[in-house]
Order: sequence, then structure tokens, then C-alpha cells
Amino acid sequence: MKLSVYLSGEIHTDWREKIIQGCQESNLNIVFSSAVTHHETSDSAGDHLGAETEQFWRDNKSAKVNAIRTKTLIERCDVAIIRFGDKYKQWNAAFDAGYCAALDKPYITLHSEELIHPLKEVDASAQAWATSVEKVITTLKYISSN
Amino acid sequence: MKLSVYLSGEIHTDWREKIIQGCQESNLNIVFSSAVTHHETSDSAGDHLGAETEQFWRDNKSAKVNAIRTKTLIERCDVAIIRFGDKYKQWNAAFDAGYCAALDKPYITLHSEELIHPLKEVDASAQAWATSVEKVITTLKYISSN
Amino acid sequence: MKLSVYLSGEIHTDWREKIIQGCQESNLNIVFSSAVTHHETSDSAGDHLGAETEQFWRDNKSAKVNAIRTKTLIERCDVAIIRFGDKYKQWNAAFDAGYCAALDKPYITLHSEELIHPLKEVDASAQAWATSVEKVITTLKYISSN
Amino acid sequence: MKLSVYLSGEIHTDWREKIIQGCQESNLNIVFSSAVTHHETSDSAGDHLGAETEQFWRDNKSAKVNAIRTKTLIERCDVAIIRFGDKYKQWNAAFDAGYCAALDKPYITLHSEELIHPLKEVDASAQAWATSVEKVITTLKYISSN
Amino acid sequence: MKLSVYLSGEIHTDWREKIIQGCQESNLNIVFSSAVTHHETSDSAGDHLGAETEQFWRDNKSAKVNAIRTKTLIERCDVAIIRFGDKYKQWNAAFDAGYCAALDKPYITLHSEELIHPLKEVDASAQAWATSVEKVITTLKYISSN
Amino acid sequence: MKLSVYLSGEIHTDWREKIIQGCQESNLNIVFSSAVTHHETSDSAGDHLGAETEQFWRDNKSAKVNAIRTKTLIERCDVAIIRFGDKYKQWNAAFDAGYCAALDKPYITLHSEELIHPLKEVDASAQAWATSVEKVITTLKYISSN
Amino acid sequence: MKLSVYLSGEIHTDWREKIIQGCQESNLNIVFSSAVTHHETSDSAGDHLGAETEQFWRDNKSAKVNAIRTKTLIERCDVAIIRFGDKYKQWNAAFDAGYCAALDKPYITLHSEELIHPLKEVDASAQAWATSVEKVITTLKYISSN
Amino acid sequence: MKLSVYLSGEIHTDWREKIIQGCQESNLNIVFSSAVTHHETSDSAGDHLGAETEQFWRDNKSAKVNAIRTKTLIERCDVAIIRFGDKYKQWNAAFDAGYCAALDKPYITLHSEELIHPLKEVDASAQAWATSVEKVITTLKYISSN
Repeated sequence: MKLSVYLSGEIHTDWREKIIQGCQESNLNIVFSSAVTHHETSDSAGDHLGAETEQFWRDNKSAKVNAIRTKTLIERCDVAIIRFGDKYKQWNAAFDAGYCAALDKPYITLHSEELIHPLKEVDASAQAWATSVEKVITTLKYISSN
Repeated sequence: MKLSVYLSGEIHTDWREKIIQGCQESNLNIVFSSAVTHHETSDSAGDHLGAETEQFWRDNKSAKVNAIRTKTLIERCDVAIIRFGDKYKQWNAAFDAGYCAALDKPYITLHSEELIHPLKEVDASAQAWATSVEKVITTLKYISSN
Repeated sequence: MKLSVYLSGEIHTDWREKIIQGCQESNLNIVFSSAVTHHETSDSAGDHLGAETEQFWRDNKSAKVNAIRTKTLIERCDVAIIRFGDKYKQWNAAFDAGYCAALDKPYITLHSEELIHPLKEVDASAQAWATSVEKVITTLKYISSN
Repeated sequence: MKLSVYLSGEIHTDWREKIIQGCQESNLNIVFSSAVTHHETSDSAGDHLGAETEQFWRDNKSAKVNAIRTKTLIERCDVAIIRFGDKYKQWNAAFDAGYCAALDKPYITLHSEELIHPLKEVDASAQAWATSVEKVITTLKYISSN
Repeated sequence: MKLSVYLSGEIHTDWREKIIQGCQESNLNIVFSSAVTHHETSDSAGDHLGAETEQFWRDNKSAKVNAIRTKTLIERCDVAIIRFGDKYKQWNAAFDAGYCAALDKPYITLHSEELIHPLKEVDASAQAWATSVEKVITTLKYISSN
Repeated sequence: MKLSVYLSGEIHTDWREKIIQGCQESNLNIVFSSAVTHHETSDSAGDHLGAETEQFWRDNKSAKVNAIRTKTLIERCDVAIIRFGDKYKQWNAAFDAGYCAALDKPYITLHSEELIHPLKEVDASAQAWATSVEKVITTLKYISSN
Repeated sequence: MKLSVYLSGEIHTDWREKIIQGCQESNLNIVFSSAVTHHETSDSAGDHLGAETEQFWRDNKSAKVNAIRTKTLIERCDVAIIRFGDKYKQWNAAFDAGYCAALDKPYITLHSEELIHPLKEVDASAQAWATSVEKVITTLKYISSN
Repeated sequence: MKLSVYLSGEIHTDWREKIIQGCQESNLNIVFSSAVTHHETSDSAGDHLGAETEQFWRDNKSAKVNAIRTKTLIERCDVAIIRFGDKYKQWNAAFDAGYCAALDKPYITLHSEELIHPLKEVDASAQAWATSVEKVITTLKYISSN
């Protein structure tokens, strides 16, 4: 079956590429989507609308422009993969998880064992927790089989 | 006007008590609610359902029991206050923000200027950002006025 | 029957007071609500959250604080009265009408014959159009009768 | 990514054509839609259903026929651009903005700095505010990038 | 248990009064509601908003005013009783049934055996069909029992 | 623009064919759908599931099978045309109108002037009323124009 | 906090009474509700609407009358307890669980270890699984605490 | 008309294949979907995410992975066929029926006369009950006819 999969979270490693490549190698019928994942591009998404002197408003404008894209893609997807790495606050990933939960959109978390306790609320609403990209690929292969 | 306000996030400082007290001193017609905020009680919320040897499942059971309460209270509230402190991951607070956003439930964030950048997505869907408990109280006083 | 009625629009005349008084004189079982209608107070609703040098952001903060109240009240009401006077842009009133229409919340417009043409889209989704406060009161008396 | 964009508001300038052309020049994967923008055609949309002697009913019939189209297109779109010019009441544009807000459909406003204050409620629910057609195009290019 | 029951349809017999009285005699915890059932009052519900020369617009105005009431009451009720008598078109009753069906609001039809065939679509979405007021009362007694 | 149009009501005249043909002659981008309109076939839609001795249950089974189709098509359509002729009860057409109204699905009624009064509630929630097939075609041509 | 709790499933043991009594002894602010749990009364819920010769239609009429009550109570509740005993098919309990899951209404299952495998899909959407009435009471006490 | 049909329930007989083949022979425009129906594969759907020593957690992980697929397919389908055989608990089939009912998604049950009484609640929300695969095929042929 055909699936739309949204990839949310960590942007500093190549987990997205690995999942996409792994699914392509198995010829899965999956369309992937993401937020804009280039850090500087994403942070400056609203700059063209007018320069801001306050950091809050610069961030606010960029985040709202980005939200047009992410909200649309989350609502279109069948399942989301939400990745938490070992660095940074990553509150946007947890925000996306809560957004999915309220929409009753199934999601799979991808994180190491070290993060079990602080992610317990996020995992409690997830359909699955994977500790590696390979496990995500195997799960997607299973779900989308004919 | 009468308001139901849900207080989400940080449990290691007394910001909840200060907001509740400040609103009571002004005789505001507000009912406050929260998750269970005693750390050990919350972490052991599912223990009576059967001991677990794996940390993941112990956390999972407790988090799911807690979610019965928090989900119900978020859906009942008119507005949520979501507090981010300077410690811990606090992914549950960001999760609650995303949950509110998807339900189109207005929320106000409460955090210091240091957290502006990592919270930009959370703030982008908020109705207001306050840097102090007093500012939250003033906002609630304004909203609930007759 | 008991009704909750939201009064939206023009704040420079006493149409709200007249409707409330007229309904009280008939002992109707109606609870009325409104946005904060004191102009300066409304415009400065977000000022306590931090001063802004840009007019856009000052207005933005105040409007978002006000929206917590108005959105909550519109969603709670059974019917809205939306008043357009002969001055000012009054885009917030038309915005409220669109908001009601999308929520399938019935509303009654209150405006003079001069505004028929520019308000045709707003009236097309309304349940009634009244040209005087008295006609609104008569309508509410009829709807809420036992 | 593919986007459906609804263009709402001002019909007396060529802002629609400029946005469409600008996006085509960049080969963006965007489908645009609009209300019928020919003024006389739109005003007479209901005339064939029977002549009216009252201006109110003529406008009412035409506006309701037009609403079949606009409501359908707004619900289909991913994002709306809502344009306010410097003439006319333009309450239909503010109505569309409110309609989008209640449906949780993201929209971008397009207007000059002179209109900041009267449009503060409309802008408060928008995802972005642009002062030129070029800025809208840049935003759409960003959102729809792969 | 407490129930809100909406009584829709035929206004020329006393079936409403009989159901209300029968339920009161059994001390059932039921709140009943209805459209305005006085024929001339209902037909003239919009007359105070301005006289019309065309029958269509007079009826349209009155029906829209009445719909504010009926829509609100249908959405508030737990169950509707929809009565079809042996006279008149009674399309408003069938309209209410369709409205309930789309809202997933349970309803019980009340009509004689003669109307089985023409009401088959209406009955197909009903939770029960009763041929007498007494059977409706027995059903309500059962549903609302403790 | 592409439209999906559901044709509901009267099955004893050729109004459906005329609308479809008229739209085809104008090359409109419209997909039409309907209930099964062959009377005996529709009445016996459930017979293969087992014979019934009671008329009520025979009708009930057939009406429920038909509802799978009609409900699906109404939910898929962009606009419905609801036709009332001068014969029969036609409660299914009024039921479809109520169903559309509750789903906020726009519909156009098609009936003669004689039926204005009994159809006032159905017309009050309609987006347009047409007295001839030609007027419906003109309306569809207008709505679906590019 | 106040809770509404729906008790679904097994009717041949006194688990409902035990939960209600246990919660009363702890003075919990909980309102309990249930389907009619007297077996013969429930099976004959539709008999007064007319005798049936076919078992299918007798069951169908009674089940539809019962559904008016159960559907209303499930939609009103904050959380459901769904009990599976060691006898009978109990498909109605699994049906209620699926109904709750689709409404995003949290539920707790109550069953012995022997039923883990056949109930895996039902448990997968539950917020908690309890093996004894005491564990349910402890959970409700925790959730409803102040 | 094109239909999406979800086949839920019994996995130990070839009823799915027969329905699919029967519809193909009639060239019906139907897309069928199902859960993964290979028993061992389905039970081990979550094993790759990490071995579990407790039966409950093994089942829980697999069932949640399977639910990503089944929930997505049920929400996509136009109608579901829900099959109950004469063996096993089959609570997942009843769960799917309740899920469909709450989503207002029409479903047809397929079971023998022996199961009428225990399935009365499931049948009460169904659009049809069939006792053989042939009857299901005939129903689908009827619904999807042009």
C-alpha cells in the first residue's frame, strides 16, 4: 500500500537520507516529506518579509513561515517518524509529536535508550519506538506491504 | 468571564502556586488544573498495575496513566499556560503545546529570553509569550474581565 | 430557552447596551458577551508583555491577547450579533463573521441599508439582517421563547 | 512539494496575475484558484435565477452563488493569500480570513503599512504579512521547495 | 440519567404534550425542546425584519430565523423524536432527520404503518420507529433509567 | 475548476439527464453522481440478503444498502442539486438536504413556485433555488468557470 | 477533579458495584454510568415497539434502542473501563473499545492474563490494563486527585 | 463508481480471496485492503523493535505496529466488510466495527445465523448483514454500479 511519511526532528545527522534510501532499495511505495532541514535557511525563512532588530520577532516570523509547510505536510501524512538526537533542545520535535497525537496521526519515535525517561510522554502516545534507522525501515516495509 | 486554565510544564519551582495565588488575590473567576506535579508520584503512576523490569515499560505505563488526566484537562481548558524552566528536557511541555496547537486551543508560553531560539516553533503557535509570572497574571486578569 | 449571545463589531456607539437592556426588560434568559470594548485598553492589551518599537508588533501582541478572549467567547456562544457602523474599516467584525460561518455558528448582522452591497458576502452567510437594535431584540425574544 | 493556493481579496489590480506569473517563472508546483474576479460578472452571478427588485436580494442571491465556489476552493487549498488594497470596504477579504482561521487553514496577508492598525486582528491569525507581491512569491517558493 | 429530547415535526396534533405529560408522570429526568410550534407565529418569524412582497423571501426570512433556534436545539439534544402525520408535505421533519443523521445524533421516528414506504430512507438512519406516543414514552423511560 | 455534483431527488422525470447533457455540451469539468434511480431496483436493493415477510424490514434493508452509496457520494461531492417534483412524498430528498446542511455541503434546490412554502426550511439552508434545469446548468457553468 | 466514568462489558459479575463502592469509600468525585445491565431487560428493550418473529430483528430493535443510551453515555464520559470476563463472546465490549478509540476517548481494560493474546488489539489502544477491580480503583483515585 | 473496501476479521478461511475474485470477475471498480493476514507475521510485527520477555509487551508492540496500517486503511476506505467466523474470540473484528461506527464509516457484517445474538450490537450499527460471500459480492456490485 502507498504511504506518506513525514520525517520530523534532528537535522544534524543523515537519518532522513538513510531511511529514504533504505526504503527505495526495497522499492517501497512511500512518499517522504520534511521541514526545510538546512539550518540557516530555516532560521532565515522570514527574513525576506522585513528585517527585525529583536531576535524574538525574527525567530517568530521564520517559525511561522516554516509552520505553513510543516503543518500542511503533517496533516497530509499517514505516519510520522519523530527523531530525537543527543544534542540540542529539540522542542520542535516534541511539539510535532503532540500535534500528531491530537490529530490522531500515528507516529514512530526514533531515539536511543538514554532518552527513555525524558521522552516517556512522547513515547506514550507513539505507535512504536525504534532505536535505529534500520528498525524504522523494517517497520515501514511491514506496514506498506501488499 | 469564567475561565478554565491548564498549567503545563516545569514542576520544580512554584510558578503554579504564584499564578493561582495572584489570580485569587484579584478574585478572578478562574479554575486551574494541572498534571500530578509530585515527581515521584507521577513517575510511579502505573506501578500498581504491575511491576516492570524494563525502564521503558515502567515509564510507558505511568505516562499513559498520567495522559488520561492531562488529555482530559487540556481538552476541558479554555487556555493553557506552558512553562519552560532552565533545566531538564521538558519535552512533555512542548508535547502539550503541540497538542494544544492541533486542537486550536490557545496557550501562553512562560520562559526566559535565553530560550527564545529553541522555543521558536512553540512560540510561533502561542497567543502570547510572558517572561514572568506577573505578566501571566496580568494577561489572565485582562482576558477574564467583565 | 437559554441563549449565549456574542456581540461583535462597532465599539463607538451604545448598541450593545441597548440590546442588553432591551432583553433584560423582557426578562429573556440570555447571557451576553463581548470583546473588551474600551478602545485604548484593547489596543494596549499586550503592552505589559514588553514594549515594542514597531507598530506592527505592538498591534500583533495586543490582537493575539484579545483573540484568546474573543475566540473562546465565539466558540461558547449560540448566536452572534455582528454590527457594522458607518465609520472605520471594521475588518475585525467581518473576520468574526467568517469565523462564525466556518464554525457553522449562526449570526445576525446589524447595519444600515447603505452597507448592503459591500456586506453582501457577510450577509449571505448570516441567518438574518437587522437595521435596528429593536429588530435584533425582537429576534432574540422570538428565538429564546418557551 | 505541490501546493494549492487560494487568492482572496482585491480585484482591481493585477496582483493575482503577478503572483501566478512569478511562480510560473520559477516552475513552482502550485495550483492557484480564486473567486470570479470580474466585478460585474460576480455581482450578477445570481441574476439568471430570477430578477429582483430589492438590491438586498439581488446581492444576496449572487453572493450565495459565489460562495459555493469560494467555500469549495478555500476548503481545498493548502494556503490562502489575502490581499487588502487601499480602496473599498473589502469585508469579503476579512471574512475569508476569518473563515480560514476557524478552519485552521494558514493564510498570508498582503497589504501596505498604512493598514497595519485596522488589520491587526486579521494579521494576528495570519502566518505571515507581506507588503509586496515579490515577498509573497519568495514565501511560496520557500514553502514549496523540495 | 438526564436526557435532552428534541421534538420535531407535525404541529397540528398534541403529540408533543402527550409525550411531555407521560414522561412527567413517570418523573423522568428529561428536558424537552421544540421549534416554535404556533403555525402563524412561525410563518411570520422574520416579518419584523422588514416586509417582503415576494412569498419566497418572506418564507426565507422566517425560516432562517427559525433555523437559529432549531439548529441550536438539535445540536444540544441527546435524542430527537421526529413525527410524521398524515397531512402536509412535512419536509422540515425529514430535513431535521437528515441533519441528525449527519451529526450522528440518534433519533426515533413516530408515524403510522401507512408511511413505511415513503419514509424508508428516514427510518433507515433512525434508532427506532414507534407507531404511538405511548411507545415513545416507554422508550424514553427505558433509555433514561438509572 | 473541477466539480463533483450529486443529483438527489425525483426519479420519474429526466432532469438528471438534461443537466448532465447540458453540462457536457458546454464541456464543463464536472463529475455527476446519483443514487440508483431505477425504482424497482432501488426498492429491492436488499432482497438478495434474505426475503422478508414484513414490509418495514424489506424497506429497511434496501434503504440501508442504498445509504452506503448515497452517503459516500454526498460526502465526496462539492455541491448537490436537490430536486422536488410535483408528486410523491419525496422525504428522501429533504433528508439529503438536511444531511448536506449538517455537513456544511452547499446545495441548490430545483422546484417550482408551487412548492415554495412547504420547502421553506429546505430552501433556507440552500445556496440557491432554481426553477428550471437550464438555470441549474447556468449556475454550474458559472461556478466551475476558470 | 471531577470525572465521568463509563463501565462497559461483562454483566454477570459484580465488578461494577465493587468499583463504584471502592470509589465512594474514598470520596472520589466520580459519576459512573452503564448500559442497562439486567440481561433480560436489555434483550427485550425493543419489544414494546412491536413483536418480531425473526430473532435477528428482535435483537436488532433492542440493540438499537440500547445504543441510544450507550452512545450518549460514551460520548459524555471522560474515561471508560472495559471489562472482559471469562465467558461469552463479549463482542459488545470490544465494539465499545473501538468506538472509544475512534473518538480518542481514553479507556482502561480489565481482564485476566489468560486473555492477553486475543485482546491485544483492544489493549493496544487502551491507556492501561488492570487485572483486578482494586487496580482500577487505585487508577481512578490517582487520576481524579486534586 | 469507484470504491475502497476494507476487509476485516477472520484470517483462517479464504473469504477475502473469494470476494476479491468475485468482484474482479464482474470488473467492479473496487480497491481492496486488509490488515496483514498471515498469522505468525502479524503476531511478530513488532519483534524487530526488540525482544520482550513478557507476552503482554510482545503482543502490545505488534498490535501497535499493526494498528498503524489498519487505522490508516479504515480511514481511507468507503465501506468495510467485517467477518466473524465460528472460531476464536475475534475481538479485533468487533473493535474494527466499533471504530467504523464512531467514524460514521459504513460496514457490512458477514457471519452465520448462529452468531446473531452475540453480534447484535455490532449488527445494530451495520448497514447490512450477509450470510455468504456471494451476498457481499452482490451488494458491492449494486453499490458500485454506474
